[in-house]
Amino acid sequence: MILRDDCRIMDDLDEIASLRDEFRLNEGEIYLDGNSLGPVGEASRRRVTEVIDVEWARGLVRSWNSAGWMAEPTRLGDKLAPLIGARPGEVLVADTLTFLLAKLVGGALELKKDRHVVLTDVANFHSDLYIVEAMAARAGRPVTVKVINRNALDDALDDDVALVMLTHVDFRTGEMLDMAGITKKAHAAGALMLWDFAHSTGAVPLDVTGCDVDFAAGCGYKYLNGGPGAPAFLYVRERWQGVLENPLPGWLGHVRPFDFELRYEPAEGMQAFVTSSPSMIALASLDGALDLFERVTMDQIRAKSLALTDLFIALVEDRLPGVFELVTPREHATRASQVALRHAEGYGVIQALSERGVIGDFRSPDICRFGFTPLYVRFVDVFDAVERLVEVMDSRMYRDARFAVRNPVT
Amino acid sequence: MILRDDCRIMDDLDEIASLRDEFRLNEGEIYLDGNSLGPVGEASRRRVTEVIDVEWARGLVRSWNSAGWMAEPTRLGDKLAPLIGARPGEVLVADTLTFLLAKLVGGALELKKDRHVVLTDVANFHSDLYIVEAMAARAGRPVTVKVINRNALDDALDDDVALVMLTHVDFRTGEMLDMAGITKKAHAAGALMLWDFAHSTGAVPLDVTGCDVDFAAGCGYKYLNGGPGAPAFLYVRERWQGVLENPLPGWLGHVRPFDFELRYEPAEGMQAFVTSSPSMIALASLDGALDLFERVTMDQIRAKSLALTDLFIALVEDRLPGVFELVTPREHATRASQVALRHAEGYGVIQALSERGVIGDFRSPDICRFGFTPLYVRFVDVFDAVERLVEVMDSRMYRDARFAVRNPVT
Repeated sequence: MILRDDCRIMDDLDEIASLRDEFRLNEGEIYLDGNSLGPVGEASRRRVTEVIDVEWARGLVRSWNSAGWMAEPTRLGDKLAPLIGARPGEVLVADTLTFLLAKLVGGALELKKDRHVVLTDVANFHSDLYIVEAMAARAGRPVTVKVINRNALDDALDDDVALVMLTHVDFRTGEMLDMAGITKKAHAAGALMLWDFAHSTGAVPLDVTGCDVDFAAGCGYKYLNGGPGAPAFLYVRERWQGVLENPLPGWLGHVRPFDFELRYEPAEGMQAFVTSSPSMIALASLDGALDLFERVTMDQIRAKSLALTDLFIALVEDRLPGVFELVTPREHATRASQVALRHAEGYGVIQALSERGVIGDFRSPDICRFGFTPLYVRFVDVFDAVERLVEVMDSRMYRDARFAVRNPVT
Repeated sequence: MILRDDCRIMDDLDEIASLRDEFRLNEGEIYLDGNSLGPVGEASRRRVTEVIDVEWARGLVRSWNSAGWMAEPTRLGDKLAPLIGARPGEVLVADTLTFLLAKLVGGALELKKDRHVVLTDVANFHSDLYIVEAMAARAGRPVTVKVINRNALDDALDDDVALVMLTHVDFRTGEMLDMAGITKKAHAAGALMLWDFAHSTGAVPLDVTGCDVDFAAGCGYKYLNGGPGAPAFLYVRERWQGVLENPLPGWLGHVRPFDFELRYEPAEGMQAFVTSSPSMIALASLDGALDLFERVTMDQIRAKSLALTDLFIALVEDRLPGVFELVTPREHATRASQVALRHAEGYGVIQALSERGVIGDFRSPDICRFGFTPLYVRFVDVFDAVERLVEVMDSRMYRDARFAVRNPVT
């Protein structure tokens, strides 16, 4: 039997507990949806103010040079690189995740012109599926996107496969895939490997270098706390730079952007994957958010993340036995930083819980999803969240008629 | 002979003079580069703060519904629509100009499958040329991009032309094209017409409805003052909605984005052209900037713009006869809101002028470019700018050795 006092002691012993003070959180609310949208960090707030009041207001157009705006996508890329195990000069911050996937899929299909299949996972986020289909349709040759169950990957990997595109952490279940093993298999079959890190970056340690990953992309607004619709990031392993073409080229990716040349000639390195300038204000928010990750290691984050999700699972199973089906893997090796619970009336559960100040989210048709961001979620929060969940389930308030009609976003 | 007092009187008579108070401008500096990056407006500042401190910090993930984030691209589109003469439901704000051109060019080539040429202008901004080439290369059939001198348009317009893509105002010379006449010619030849409004929106009245324009796009950071790298906008005439396909589809353009369907099915109307979410913070800045345009008509802006550029040209020709070649058309009908002066040592001129507190910009190889934004540029500013230009030319300080090596951005 785990008591609230036990959780308080765990918080006292938590060496990264003080990072919570850097966030603006609502009094009395327990936020377990940082895997959908992270909260405001004070550094984001400060950095946005600095960009508007100093760089933009005073520097005006000069700030493209004097404030380094031209280099912001690559500077922030280098700042983010350690979070995914990339080397300097391999990461770029710009655009949105879907556009960056378009660039990588389009480019990769040019690299493997003798092959005509892209393999991806039926459980992938749907935007990934739409953009890979769209880029395959424009490859200039017949390319088939095979949307398989990822467990059937071994059978599907043959000589026809140009690219394997998978999301590292399943957005519904929170299952984390074996990045090293799958990448190795893809390479053994002669295919390129592209990972979507939307639910991984900032939540679990990643090692693109050690895993020999070719390409990756991820978003800035979930565990990185970069703000709603924050710019995304792109990883291109060094060996593919200067080889991989950007299928959506723009002037800022030109080797001489201010020479106004009629023909596109890509810049060196990651700059070639910049199309046009992302918003400096949007970048500023993500920039500030990344500061926090310089005060913590991904191993510290991982250790606390597993402790938080272990605690949540234990409490739910203890207090509400048989009420939910645990969808997230129990094994640490395949569990990321969220816990998904299946319940036929999951939508009502999430809504009722929200009214009691615990914010999780619902994923159709029956998944209650709870994200645990070690930077600001405390062990007592987990305890209190489960207490409130018990109240919701015991009172059956999740069956309230107000929850019969679903909101588009939950 | 125009005196400074004459200019002061013109300012006194200027009915939109008070709008200048809404901007943060540097004391003593004359900013004639709003055609490259507009300055900070107080409303942008306020709206960004509101989005961060209230919508993001307090509303968190709920703001996708409660603060209307889901609908921001179309809401801002409708707010911007009057500036280009579009109807409600025909404009969207998102992404960057290059990505939006990619969507329009890719979509348009699908609409005209029996034709295989895109016509564009050699004087076009280079990013436009790169993206049209890239999308043509991925059209799924051989498509040729003919980069012509726009004066040769009549000869080039034949039965092969699927799309004519032109920039309404030449970014170097400030020449404004005949939108109605050219669109009519394109249509008479059976081609679709796409206009780039980068240097038009907020600077000159536009009437896409009256001119029967098919597609248009423009940026948010020049005359609209939306901030560095602000989101861009897209216009799709109502008759093409539901017909034009988005070649870069994403989940937010799906008719049921939260049903996670495997197949892309476009939403109705402009929403189909949303790929994924733009930064809400970046949108907020543009949102605030657009408020100002609700306090002024485009006719008022146009009248003052022409008066400012008339004054500038007259003063330069009076005070510095024969020193510069006037590149911008003298005729009102073909002049937008900038004046371009040619000088062999133009780079040094712009740099020296900047040191004297007049900010213009340089466009390779020899163009000194001055933008006049009626919302905040005064007639005395024009007078004082020319006085300082006279000092720079008389003192020959533009020949200073410091200006021998060009900065990448000027």
